[in-house]
Amino acid sequence: MNIQVAVIVSVSVSVLAFLVALYFFFWVKKQPSSNPEIARVGGFIKKGANTFLKKEYMLLAIFAGVAAVLILLFLPHPIWGEETAKWSWVKNVSMMISYICGTVLSAIAGKVGITVATIANMKAAEAATKGIRPSFLAGFRGGAVMGMAVVGTSLMGVSLVYLLTEDASAVLGFSFGASSLALFAKAGGGIFTKTADISADLVGKVELGIPEDDPRNPAVIADNVGDNVGDVAGMGADLFDSHVASISAALVMGVALSASADSIKANHFTIMVIIYGAIGLFSSVIGVLLARMGKKGGPTQALNLSTYVTTALFAGFAALASLLFFNDEAGWRVWGAMMVGLFVGTIIGIVSDYFTNDTKPPVRYVANASKSGPAFTILSGTSYGFLSVFPPMIGIAISALAAYKICEPIMNSAVSGMFGIAMAAVGMLSIVGMVISNDAYGPIVDNARGLVEMGGLGNEALEITDSLDSAGNTVKAVTKGFAIGAAGLTIIALLGAFMSEVNDAAADAIAAGKKGIELLTGFDILNPVVFFGLLVGAAVPAVFSAMLMLGVDRNAQRMVAEIHRQFKTIVGLKEGKKGVVPEYEKCIDIATTGALKELIPAGLVAILATLLVGFVGGVQAVGGFLAGNIVSGLLLALFMSNAGGLWDNAKKYIESGHNGGKGSDAHKAAVVGDTVGDPYKDTAGPSINTQVTVVSLVASIMASLFLTYSIF
Amino acid sequence: MNIQVAVIVSVSVSVLAFLVALYFFFWVKKQPSSNPEIARVGGFIKKGANTFLKKEYMLLAIFAGVAAVLILLFLPHPIWGEETAKWSWVKNVSMMISYICGTVLSAIAGKVGITVATIANMKAAEAATKGIRPSFLAGFRGGAVMGMAVVGTSLMGVSLVYLLTEDASAVLGFSFGASSLALFAKAGGGIFTKTADISADLVGKVELGIPEDDPRNPAVIADNVGDNVGDVAGMGADLFDSHVASISAALVMGVALSASADSIKANHFTIMVIIYGAIGLFSSVIGVLLARMGKKGGPTQALNLSTYVTTALFAGFAALASLLFFNDEAGWRVWGAMMVGLFVGTIIGIVSDYFTNDTKPPVRYVANASKSGPAFTILSGTSYGFLSVFPPMIGIAISALAAYKICEPIMNSAVSGMFGIAMAAVGMLSIVGMVISNDAYGPIVDNARGLVEMGGLGNEALEITDSLDSAGNTVKAVTKGFAIGAAGLTIIALLGAFMSEVNDAAADAIAAGKKGIELLTGFDILNPVVFFGLLVGAAVPAVFSAMLMLGVDRNAQRMVAEIHRQFKTIVGLKEGKKGVVPEYEKCIDIATTGALKELIPAGLVAILATLLVGFVGGVQAVGGFLAGNIVSGLLLALFMSNAGGLWDNAKKYIESGHNGGKGSDAHKAAVVGDTVGDPYKDTAGPSINTQVTVVSLVASIMASLFLTYSIF
Repeated sequence: MNIQVAVIVSVSVSVLAFLVALYFFFWVKKQPSSNPEIARVGGFIKKGANTFLKKEYMLLAIFAGVAAVLILLFLPHPIWGEETAKWSWVKNVSMMISYICGTVLSAIAGKVGITVATIANMKAAEAATKGIRPSFLAGFRGGAVMGMAVVGTSLMGVSLVYLLTEDASAVLGFSFGASSLALFAKAGGGIFTKTADISADLVGKVELGIPEDDPRNPAVIADNVGDNVGDVAGMGADLFDSHVASISAALVMGVALSASADSIKANHFTIMVIIYGAIGLFSSVIGVLLARMGKKGGPTQALNLSTYVTTALFAGFAALASLLFFNDEAGWRVWGAMMVGLFVGTIIGIVSDYFTNDTKPPVRYVANASKSGPAFTILSGTSYGFLSVFPPMIGIAISALAAYKICEPIMNSAVSGMFGIAMAAVGMLSIVGMVISNDAYGPIVDNARGLVEMGGLGNEALEITDSLDSAGNTVKAVTKGFAIGAAGLTIIALLGAFMSEVNDAAADAIAAGKKGIELLTGFDILNPVVFFGLLVGAAVPAVFSAMLMLGVDRNAQRMVAEIHRQFKTIVGLKEGKKGVVPEYEKCIDIATTGALKELIPAGLVAILATLLVGFVGGVQAVGGFLAGNIVSGLLLALFMSNAGGLWDNAKKYIESGHNGGKGSDAHKAAVVGDTVGDPYKDTAGPSINTQVTVVSLVASIMASLFLTYSIF
Repeated sequence: MNIQVAVIVSVSVSVLAFLVALYFFFWVKKQPSSNPEIARVGGFIKKGANTFLKKEYMLLAIFAGVAAVLILLFLPHPIWGEETAKWSWVKNVSMMISYICGTVLSAIAGKVGITVATIANMKAAEAATKGIRPSFLAGFRGGAVMGMAVVGTSLMGVSLVYLLTEDASAVLGFSFGASSLALFAKAGGGIFTKTADISADLVGKVELGIPEDDPRNPAVIADNVGDNVGDVAGMGADLFDSHVASISAALVMGVALSASADSIKANHFTIMVIIYGAIGLFSSVIGVLLARMGKKGGPTQALNLSTYVTTALFAGFAALASLLFFNDEAGWRVWGAMMVGLFVGTIIGIVSDYFTNDTKPPVRYVANASKSGPAFTILSGTSYGFLSVFPPMIGIAISALAAYKICEPIMNSAVSGMFGIAMAAVGMLSIVGMVISNDAYGPIVDNARGLVEMGGLGNEALEITDSLDSAGNTVKAVTKGFAIGAAGLTIIALLGAFMSEVNDAAADAIAAGKKGIELLTGFDILNPVVFFGLLVGAAVPAVFSAMLMLGVDRNAQRMVAEIHRQFKTIVGLKEGKKGVVPEYEKCIDIATTGALKELIPAGLVAILATLLVGFVGGVQAVGGFLAGNIVSGLLLALFMSNAGGLWDNAKKYIESGHNGGKGSDAHKAAVVGDTVGDPYKDTAGPSINTQVTVVSLVASIMASLFLTYSIF
């Protein structure tokens, strides 16, 4: 097989995914919708989401434009530099174009997700009057449109950029485009959604005691919009980014490996990367097509079953491909590394589930501790959150070590070892199409629940959407663990990619006769410059998440003030007088403006810290910086995601009648925990991943500059 | 100068410190005490503290006994091994004896501190009826007894062990003894004190609305006992450990350096370490002797002034010593490294102050956010806590880099660079005698405040002790930052010591003709075994602190139940009927039993994880493990200490009449923050330091075993 054929395969599978997405889109669209109230409220949500997205994308277009110009001028080399054997100004142009493609495709994927999600929520709400199975299917297929669109775009984009430029650095540029957009989409969407969620709950549930999704609450539409812009568009951009980054890292290592493999024909390993990416998407396509709720078993089982089916399909297809195309020791070693990734991904998912599932001790303990007041909810939840980082960190550590050791003998080198880690990440993310489908399902049915409530579709429909929503939360915990594990392996592989890029640049500089430049052999922790980077890199995720949480905090206070104002000044609103409608758009406005104001500084801090460390300490310091960033980023992301999920479910557990039930002191304490956990799990926690990826990619594409222009 | 003279100097200064301690002890003792109620309650506190200490020490004696036997059998080499040029079974015996000395001396220092603290609190209370200045002096001199005793014992112990064994490994054994005791004293004391504090506040202040230190509260004596066993004995053991560790690390590097310095006479650098340690103690002696409250200025100024005086004295004396004894380039470079440490220590202290001082924006912001409910108290406090890690991490990173670069040219080697880092830590900890005096002052005047309340000494005395207490809290924030910074540098230096120990063992093994063993040149992050260690090491502090916090949580719930029981069953207690006394000792019992039960597993997890990583991944994995442990340990320790201090002061700020004052909703929310912050800042946060030190020392003394018996 040659690289052209591999790209044709992957583009074909991507097109297949688009066709399935289109099929689902029209299927969802043709589902019945007759209720005018739902149409009205659903229209509000759609409009709010689109308004936010438009404003956000305009801001990001400015950012991306500036970044594109900077890339053109400086990356991979200053454009006014002398041409070398491996560089001419054309490289700068192709990196800039790749970067722009990365941002645009990521934005399109987000837009597609929002569009279908804001239709599917209405369909799922209406379908809930007919039963749980049609409602489930409307929600799931709505999510699957997003899943197929995201992964199809990602795979096609990476494959084509690589085929056209034949340059791994350009692929990293594409990846950087995707992740710089993801950083802001995730952070901005995360701030928006939690601003609205917290404010709505605080005034509605806690102060006034009105139910969730009560149409009198001025923040209720903003809350539903938030589900879409944060959990659908933000999550989509995030996983688009992870998927692209994992494949890019593998491609960079694959190029380095193919170059050094005299006995094997060129491109052997990059072909593997693209083919296995295509097989992962193909498995996900079959998985989503098969997914539906059986007559027995609830929605949780249905979602989990389709995940497991996809996983098994991937393992099988990958083995088949290895047998047909890569049937030698190297081929099977790569397959083994991918299986390690897949296996550990499952384990991390199961462990995450232990800490956030309300049938397991941690949630029960926190729910029980809540009887002694909110301080105990926070303390015990924080403690379990910290405990929960142990198994996945060990899991990532072991899988990285195992994948490395499995693939090291391929070329008997560190490069083949790092390629193994990258392929383990590719293995873990092979089922990402399925993961996104499941993840997008969550906010869709959450919205559907709101529409059922606001449209007055009756208690039975409410119960159905409630149970669909709760399945979404359970499954989300598992897929989140999966996504974080994969991100962990990807960023470790990106560390290898960084070194590979540095050595490429160094070899080029040495060939051009520059003095004082040596090839890197590694990053020694005892080198004080590396240790310096390690400490600074470790501090960045803490600062980054603090800025996002303070953003939510400040923004929520503004919105709470606005809700209070509306309840005070709009006559008849509190009493629910007929025809009195709150000014929903005011709240949407506050959430939008605030989110956009808060998202830029946090992202810039991370990027600027990387540049500063690079220009002060050089490539060695950056190596340490990335390692510190990875380690503390994983730690904090796992802690925040799991603690947040745990508090959410402890609250729900109490609401289902335990430890005093709704309205009890334990419940009030659990609501405090849930409010704290909201920005943990939906703003800061998942954004940290993206922050680490962005920083890793910035380091890689700046490698040559850091090598040439640094103080130490 | 030769090493004997240096040790004579350091022992003399230690004896001087003991004399000052004795003088202060008798001075405190002869202060008047006539109030029988104070004597009665003070007696309760003394008895409770001694009971806890006795039980704790008995448990630790068992642990230390087992550890001593294991050391005798296995460390530094299995005792049945063949003798080599550098090892015979005598080494095992001397390491065991050093270990035992470390534990015993640490225990004695703690006991001395408790003894004087439980007298000084009564004297300070009584003195408060006469004015703020005598009360301040009683509190401060009580604390200074501890300060002088701890540092004198530590310096004398290290110097003598080194002189007698002439073996840096034995010094590490001594240090391990000190820190294994500190780990449990800090963790056990921390669980005890916060169990009592939280429970007393929760039932007393929050539920019943009775004032702090109200004698009707059954947990009030346990709370006061907790101040002594956690903040006095635990803190003393902790700083004993840090001081010993910093000098030990410097000695190990100094030995390695002296050995490789042909041109300089042997022991040159170890002499420096001991002399500068002595100068630090001497400066502290003068500092505490001069300390008193001027006619103008409050207690905070007095405490800070004496700290600055000590700092300036050390800088001056050290320069003088360098001029007289080490007046060459190397000597001045070492002096420079120490000054870097001292300077950065001050900066870290000032930054910690910014985040926890109620005149600065963060505390004000959190106090204001509390108006929206406890969730916002927690969210904003957590955010500022995360932000607060940035400056000290950068500070530690820069000071380590600077100290390394300053001292690297001494021998043009990594060893001299690491020696520089160790000396920066010695510089930072030079004023530790003063730091401990200030730190112990805090709980003494806190206790005095309680005694004034319970003894009914009147409002004026209460105001005086209140202001002394608040000064203690302010100063504590600064000294804590200092202690954490110093611990940071120390553990970095211990990483160097670990490599030095490994290479000693490796050289020995190679000389003995063993195959497959190589000298280490460093720990490469891209080596998957190192990265494996990095991830596992980073997870340990999170797990460790989670276990401690869960310990507090569980224990506090038990105690709250007991307090409820007493208020329910003891007739007349709630109403404050004359002659009705709660069963104080029941609460003390619960705190004691619970603390002892919870402390062992947390400590063991850290130690066992080190052993596991070492025996699986070998010395490379341990190098990564230590680095990960340092990075995440610093991150979490700084976060928890600062967030806890911030919440404490936000609550006090509101209590002083802002944002609605006492009893307002904002106050209730701030109390929740304070309760969460209590175990953060007084249990988990400061214990993490000790955990990291213990793990580093375990790694160093096990170096030779990890080298020989590991899977990878």
